[in-house]
Amino acid sequence: MSTLIPCIIAGGAGARLWPVSREATPKPFMRLPDGDSLLQKTFARAAALKDVERLLTVTNREVFFRTLDDYRPLNQTRIELDFILEPFGRNTAPAIAAAALHVSQRYGADAQLLILPADHLIKDVAAFVAAVDNARPLAEQGRLVTFGLVPTHAETGFGYIEKGQALNDHSFQVRRFIEKPDAATAQRYVEGGQHLWNGGMFCMRADVILQELREFVPQVLSAVEHCLERSYRKEGPHELQVELESDSFAQAPDISIDYAVMERSKKVAVVPCQLGWSDIGSWQAVRELIPADEQGNQCTGETVLHEVSNCYIDSRQRLVGAVGLDNLIIVDTPDALLIADGKRSQDVKLIAQELKRLGHDAYRLHRTVNRPWGAYTVLEEGPRFKIKRIEVKPGASLSLQMHHHRSEHWIVVSGMARVINGEDELLLDTNESTFIKPGRPHQLSNPGVIDLVMIEVQSGEYLGEDDIVRFNDLYGRAPITPGTR
Amino acid sequence: MSTLIPCIIAGGAGARLWPVSREATPKPFMRLPDGDSLLQKTFARAAALKDVERLLTVTNREVFFRTLDDYRPLNQTRIELDFILEPFGRNTAPAIAAAALHVSQRYGADAQLLILPADHLIKDVAAFVAAVDNARPLAEQGRLVTFGLVPTHAETGFGYIEKGQALNDHSFQVRRFIEKPDAATAQRYVEGGQHLWNGGMFCMRADVILQELREFVPQVLSAVEHCLERSYRKEGPHELQVELESDSFAQAPDISIDYAVMERSKKVAVVPCQLGWSDIGSWQAVRELIPADEQGNQCTGETVLHEVSNCYIDSRQRLVGAVGLDNLIIVDTPDALLIADGKRSQDVKLIAQELKRLGHDAYRLHRTVNRPWGAYTVLEEGPRFKIKRIEVKPGASLSLQMHHHRSEHWIVVSGMARVINGEDELLLDTNESTFIKPGRPHQLSNPGVIDLVMIEVQSGEYLGEDDIVRFNDLYGRAPITPGTR
Repeated sequence: MSTLIPCIIAGGAGARLWPVSREATPKPFMRLPDGDSLLQKTFARAAALKDVERLLTVTNREVFFRTLDDYRPLNQTRIELDFILEPFGRNTAPAIAAAALHVSQRYGADAQLLILPADHLIKDVAAFVAAVDNARPLAEQGRLVTFGLVPTHAETGFGYIEKGQALNDHSFQVRRFIEKPDAATAQRYVEGGQHLWNGGMFCMRADVILQELREFVPQVLSAVEHCLERSYRKEGPHELQVELESDSFAQAPDISIDYAVMERSKKVAVVPCQLGWSDIGSWQAVRELIPADEQGNQCTGETVLHEVSNCYIDSRQRLVGAVGLDNLIIVDTPDALLIADGKRSQDVKLIAQELKRLGHDAYRLHRTVNRPWGAYTVLEEGPRFKIKRIEVKPGASLSLQMHHHRSEHWIVVSGMARVINGEDELLLDTNESTFIKPGRPHQLSNPGVIDLVMIEVQSGEYLGEDDIVRFNDLYGRAPITPGTR
Repeated sequence: MSTLIPCIIAGGAGARLWPVSREATPKPFMRLPDGDSLLQKTFARAAALKDVERLLTVTNREVFFRTLDDYRPLNQTRIELDFILEPFGRNTAPAIAAAALHVSQRYGADAQLLILPADHLIKDVAAFVAAVDNARPLAEQGRLVTFGLVPTHAETGFGYIEKGQALNDHSFQVRRFIEKPDAATAQRYVEGGQHLWNGGMFCMRADVILQELREFVPQVLSAVEHCLERSYRKEGPHELQVELESDSFAQAPDISIDYAVMERSKKVAVVPCQLGWSDIGSWQAVRELIPADEQGNQCTGETVLHEVSNCYIDSRQRLVGAVGLDNLIIVDTPDALLIADGKRSQDVKLIAQELKRLGHDAYRLHRTVNRPWGAYTVLEEGPRFKIKRIEVKPGASLSLQMHHHRSEHWIVVSGMARVINGEDELLLDTNESTFIKPGRPHQLSNPGVIDLVMIEVQSGEYLGEDDIVRFNDLYGRAPITPGTR
């Protein structure tokens, strides 16, 4: 059998899971109750397959370092990591075209791609492994193999796949793909046994999907081919990054792989499977993962409830007192609170869309902002001051930088810091502090083996994140540029 | 006419207005949309009366400095302030007994008391002044005059007063006091025109109420007399404080003035009045003060709403996104969030009671804690560190103190600080910082004329508020004691 390359495709922002999922921390990074992210679950699932030596991830370049951070603790077997880094989302057809071109060029035209969305959940990993085992020989024969999830209820939020003639004991031709049905139709599908959910997972040879893309959407393939030629490559000992060039990637039509190829190709097959699958598409889907108490409530964090039933309450930092509520979804984060009728969990995306339209920070960012070197959290802002907690990973450094208008007081509360402050270089231990004057080039790094946690008090007349001059940057960001550190 | 002494009586915690009203910041301190507190409104109302030269306040000793802070900007005419400071609440009969004894001893047995609850709202101050003018001659004649509010709706949450024979054009004898009625009875009362709300305001001569207390509840009067003899008095140029002694005050029965005297005395009269009165007894009552938008929503702070109607949303620091809600009360504070069915606003007290039972901080304290010298706010706590914003009023000082286990970093972000740090004394300007080692006696004061705002980062193994040794204290607190600053 030819080589199998799992391709994790990280797509949309998960607007229906606002305020936890946001543009800069999209749905794949959402943590489940066991502490793992959806992305980590997806990686672990791919790593559980036989003979996986390399794995390709197609994701936004903004989340590259976070993706590495999520993979690192799971990658004990040292799977080689390839990344295709998108400047912006362009739907699944261009992403899969780029993946197929990359795999074909690098691992052979007959290498198989296993397309895995980064933000779905599969509870039964053994069943998943078995389904992939069933799909691979079909892919080898030149089929575009979809995984059809046996419906557990009359869901109106998914597309369906209608089975055709049996190909063998565990696979079928596909009669047709069907868009989201109405409730009555969905009910008939569940009862009829001929329809399966389309979960967006595929197994196929690189040359086969490329051929179909060329036939049905040649402009997608040619735009992505052109883009890949112009893209920046960076190869490390265990990682390869392909950073897609923006202008040429923007030429690729925004179209899904279903619409571009699957609904038209004669080569599509489906492997029905029961995987304990969920797309975690809304807070309602998140609820289904968590046991409820006798009143039907699902609470994380501190609550005092009086005559409250069937409510989902997630508030990790703030006490919630509630009186006389039924079937509400309440999700509290440090800067934004969601309260929604449980029956309306799909409409949460309307709030996220409105925030996007307004250009509101709460659409894009969390109070805690992840950076290649760690993270920072704005604790408080006021006239002439801003207080941040800064966490720097062991061995990591911020850029050498300078601010014109603000001074910074740094107090180490955990770990050890190495500080360059103008001409001086010093080590600050826990409970020590220093002071950076405006105009003074400075750099912070963590020379230790545990996280450095520091409180920074900025003061000055102007405290915008754009008052920064960067002199160097370990993470390949622009050498001198306005931007956040 | 004899002297009139308005007596502002600050009572219960306002548990139905949790999480804004809490034990240490009770309902009189709650701010109205115009920025004034209910207590300030009450003071201004008393000051609007003719010939008021002194005003007595009966309140908890814990809120004495905050009460002074609230009065100060309003007391342009330099009304002399007497305070009776309770160690704990003991209902209205002991409070009014103490007020009457104090007024009688100090301003004459025939001086009149005008009892004003500290946490009600009266919109029509001119009508209030007129009602007091009507009450005073009756009080002079030896009546216990109540103010009966003409009902505007069939309220089941108040007691009622039934009018008896007319005494003159604008006053009546009282046939009886009636406990909170059911809805049908309340409706009859409104339509019948013979019943008035009992708002807890009274006008009466000190000697008359003392005589009635002696007749009906002699044990209340004797316990309070004994307590006053043992109490600590402190007289300043414009203020007199009587701090009630705990053990003897605890001997006074916990009983309301209505139950102790008003429902039994033959001397009671009532002056009907229309004052635009509200007891602000629940979030529903707060709602009635604020205009609603076209959807019936009343929002303070940033909101993004989709199909939300008739909701009260008060969230000053956090964005609220809401979907598909009707008639909810949502009140967000830095550490606690209330979400209640609008029809159940009375039941909010059950949440507060449960928090009290649990000994939870969110019953007693806000994230911002007021002190005689200003206030502090815990911004963040973590292992081995705690960050506070400290505000010190112009001219104020904290005690000279020392901590065994923690060091403190101080950064001035606004104003000017005078710091004693061991042997050293220094001035810190905005944007300057200093460091206090464990074991070092230190003192912080504000020598300037604007507020000093400082960020304090504490670090150390133990950061409890009880790691403090106080060497002096300007505010008469124990010289060396565990406690909060």
